[in-house]
Amino acid sequence: MNKHELTELAEDTPFYQHIGIEIIEIGDGFAKLALKYRDCLSHPFRCFHGGVIASLADSAGINAVMTTLQKNEKSLTLEMKINFLLPAKDPEIYAEGKVVRRGKRIAVSDVDVKNIEGRLIAKAIVTCTIS
Amino acid sequence: MNKHELTELAEDTPFYQHIGIEIIEIGDGFAKLALKYRDCLSHPFRCFHGGVIASLADSAGINAVMTTLQKNEKSLTLEMKINFLLPAKDPEIYAEGKVVRRGKRIAVSDVDVKNIEGRLIAKAIVTCTIS
Amino acid sequence: MNKHELTELAEDTPFYQHIGIEIIEIGDGFAKLALKYRDCLSHPFRCFHGGVIASLADSAGINAVMTTLQKNEKSLTLEMKINFLLPAKDPEIYAEGKVVRRGKRIAVSDVDVKNIEGRLIAKAIVTCTIS
Amino acid sequence: MNKHELTELAEDTPFYQHIGIEIIEIGDGFAKLALKYRDCLSHPFRCFHGGVIASLADSAGINAVMTTLQKNEKSLTLEMKINFLLPAKDPEIYAEGKVVRRGKRIAVSDVDVKNIEGRLIAKAIVTCTIS
Repeated sequence: MNKHELTELAEDTPFYQHIGIEIIEIGDGFAKLALKYRDCLSHPFRCFHGGVIASLADSAGINAVMTTLQKNEKSLTLEMKINFLLPAKDPEIYAEGKVVRRGKRIAVSDVDVKNIEGRLIAKAIVTCTIS
Repeated sequence: MNKHELTELAEDTPFYQHIGIEIIEIGDGFAKLALKYRDCLSHPFRCFHGGVIASLADSAGINAVMTTLQKNEKSLTLEMKINFLLPAKDPEIYAEGKVVRRGKRIAVSDVDVKNIEGRLIAKAIVTCTIS
Repeated sequence: MNKHELTELAEDTPFYQHIGIEIIEIGDGFAKLALKYRDCLSHPFRCFHGGVIASLADSAGINAVMTTLQKNEKSLTLEMKINFLLPAKDPEIYAEGKVVRRGKRIAVSDVDVKNIEGRLIAKAIVTCTIS
Repeated sequence: MNKHELTELAEDTPFYQHIGIEIIEIGDGFAKLALKYRDCLSHPFRCFHGGVIASLADSAGINAVMTTLQKNEKSLTLEMKINFLLPAKDPEIYAEGKVVRRGKRIAVSDVDVKNIEGRLIAKAIVTCTIS
């Protein structure tokens, strides 16, 4: 899938709209997504809630995988793991997913979540099925 | 922290309100949370988005840990991992977090996410710091 | 595969012999494995090394999955995650794997590693492919 | 800890000797370890067993963290997660651990396991406590 198709799919994903996930860059086996801070995404300490960061990381991972899909293929997240490294109070955060293994039925993405200064705030591995 | 305190904290957590996470049961080292389906929480196939399920699982894990906190302690999620087992199209889903290890500075919760029939739709392990 | 077949396969797995992994119980979607302490399995503090515990947990997870395989199917570990909960200085430790999801191509096991008193020393989730 | 101290500690770690883990490079927040193939480390398909690869990855992760320790500090693996990307039949494999977060009490390493041609065969994240 190309950037146009992935952007359309993102716009057709209600949860992306609900929290504000946007695709900003698509490459071959690569996706960069952005998310702007709003109070509704925070925990009581007024940082991004971990669930929001996990949602962004998962989305970057699967979008990276979807850049490798053929017309008749689709992908779902099978599992993910994420370490929260720093609290994020930034006006915007970014997740970069990079496919590290593309098999016939399984693909794996490595995901870095960064703040506006480029510091790593979370690190994830996302495993997707392809069918 | 007791059920009253955790419910107040949940109500003061903007992201819980934004997606609809509710505490429905609190025990000693145990928390059960619920989340009602709304279209804004879905992916294009009209199931709960994985990010929503991960957010609910993370929340159940840390709420279970928070039942073990003293007045002067607080807890943050350090990392989590989750397997998505079945797509969830149910009107409501539940996550049950159970503390399997409470150290001085680290606690670990095992989390089951279930649909309305009690079938397991996701399984997570959540590690929290205590400070 | 039944207990006899899995025991034969375990005996034909050089790494199991090298560290001493033994199958002690097989059920439907369930496997219990044991490992006796030897100094060569320890880290400098004379407990079981984490890598040994991870190896045992992985093995319990995939053996549980292999109880569900048909004659023409085989299984490989795709990924695993493990939390080390307590140091283990016991003469023997055990891992119990239980299949929590068996799809056509993917199966997931929940694994508890316990010491000789039955206390939980590690908790893992193991994801296997089936082909 | 410096390369000399870490090499001594590795030589004093019985499990490293038992499977053959060697430290080959140490930097600031970085450790590269090697492991030679022997039949006793294999599974029935004569590749490195997943438990061996997980042990090597865990060791690279914690050695990277140990390069950041002061004299009076020690570190233990709290949890790890690993994706097995390719089967490894190589005469030698390598794991490179890089610290991506060093807090006061927690450090996190990103680990790449590579074969002799430099291809990625596994990817892990290792979380360590510091006390």
